[in-house]
Amino acid sequence: MIRHTSSSFRVRYGETDQMGVAYHPNYLAWCEIGRTEYIRRLGLPYAEIERQGCFLAVADAAVRYASPARYDDLIRVETWLDSVKSRALDFRYQVHREEPSPALLATARTTLVALDAHGRPRRLPESILNLFREAM
Amino acid sequence: MIRHTSSSFRVRYGETDQMGVAYHPNYLAWCEIGRTEYIRRLGLPYAEIERQGCFLAVADAAVRYASPARYDDLIRVETWLDSVKSRALDFRYQVHREEPSPALLATARTTLVALDAHGRPRRLPESILNLFREAM
Amino acid sequence: MIRHTSSSFRVRYGETDQMGVAYHPNYLAWCEIGRTEYIRRLGLPYAEIERQGCFLAVADAAVRYASPARYDDLIRVETWLDSVKSRALDFRYQVHREEPSPALLATARTTLVALDAHGRPRRLPESILNLFREAM
Amino acid sequence: MIRHTSSSFRVRYGETDQMGVAYHPNYLAWCEIGRTEYIRRLGLPYAEIERQGCFLAVADAAVRYASPARYDDLIRVETWLDSVKSRALDFRYQVHREEPSPALLATARTTLVALDAHGRPRRLPESILNLFREAM
Repeated sequence: MIRHTSSSFRVRYGETDQMGVAYHPNYLAWCEIGRTEYIRRLGLPYAEIERQGCFLAVADAAVRYASPARYDDLIRVETWLDSVKSRALDFRYQVHREEPSPALLATARTTLVALDAHGRPRRLPESILNLFREAM
Repeated sequence: MIRHTSSSFRVRYGETDQMGVAYHPNYLAWCEIGRTEYIRRLGLPYAEIERQGCFLAVADAAVRYASPARYDDLIRVETWLDSVKSRALDFRYQVHREEPSPALLATARTTLVALDAHGRPRRLPESILNLFREAM
Repeated sequence: MIRHTSSSFRVRYGETDQMGVAYHPNYLAWCEIGRTEYIRRLGLPYAEIERQGCFLAVADAAVRYASPARYDDLIRVETWLDSVKSRALDFRYQVHREEPSPALLATARTTLVALDAHGRPRRLPESILNLFREAM
Repeated sequence: MIRHTSSSFRVRYGETDQMGVAYHPNYLAWCEIGRTEYIRRLGLPYAEIERQGCFLAVADAAVRYASPARYDDLIRVETWLDSVKSRALDFRYQVHREEPSPALLATARTTLVALDAHGRPRRLPESILNLFREAM
């Protein structure tokens, strides 16, 4: 059973904007890095879920920005599951700066829904659903 | 007085992901295109606001995704102001597909706060604040 | 017969970096906008080429940067075909700033090779090849 | 003295496009990750160079793509200096896939020129120039 995962990386130059800070949509991409890592830790790379004909699409996303991230800052994303349903997963995230000085930069949440290869809603495959339930 | 603006553009190849649809964080960048256009229509390019030492930073963002956008789809973002305060602006957005078939793809909202060149909260310059108030 | 196409758009906020100019890899994405437009003008949207099981992958790209682009600058990309072979296309590009002051910002070239759905080299479908040849 | 650096990271979901592979302009961003790491290894974070009023702008870039990268592939960028002049640096790169199966994905080169805060060409600060020369 895992409760949460930590993913660390540095802010890339191309992620900054002319305000000198990381461009705000990038935080959603960072959350996805955390989510990918979380799912990998369950023993199931996300690429494998797609090979089973199941696509997890973001249906809802929200980010609250507390403090900006700058180029080359060491970022840590904490990711955990908030709820598991047969057709939807809720993830929560905290985006922290580790270096040069620790701070909470943002909190976020996303709701993912399971889709088939044609983009239609479907149930999560049972084996995958069980992995998520056990992780809660 | 303007009530809302419409901004149109096509989905770029690089905005798609391997699910074959536009990658979800891009919607926040599209909302910014709408916001830029809205502010330009007030007679004040955003670049000019920054030259006055005022930076509008996204403090809060939320997107609800209804239907996916695909490569080369013609997108139209409707943008309007939802509230104006001396230190914060709330914008709302609807992301529509115009071609090949019309559909509402997403709704979104962002809260922007005014910062000075050092990233500290500040009041919006009075002349700019008035422009936003008149636009409501 | 078309000789070249012009594609215009404004630099997005998220395309800038902390140097205050457009991040250099974006120019390759802008060239793709020009290429997309060029192909569309041939009467054949690129999405249609993919539906025929033919994918045009960039095998080689080069950009020479002369002058930076800034947020909200109006950009115009001139695109033309430089050579057409049964398995490869060479495109050339000029990236211009139109507003606020005209300037040549960059020149670029890309070689595209035709791939099938499995990523293996293939000949361009004859009808598509003819369209490209006529455009030269 | 360092001869080259290795930088490793995984392909992000948002870096893929609908062809199912990493979108080609991203390779230039990956080269920048390698370059950042190279410069950091010299004992001088790039952010520090900018604080000294020296900006390294990409004046010329070329990428040769040999094989595609896919989502979640483990990428390794090898970076080395090819030439050092008082106003320009040439970097070379090899982009390798480490997992799931090793392969050379691309080779690239970039020329960087030193600019002051106003975007005008300048000499590299002597201390920084010496660090680069010693690294050759």
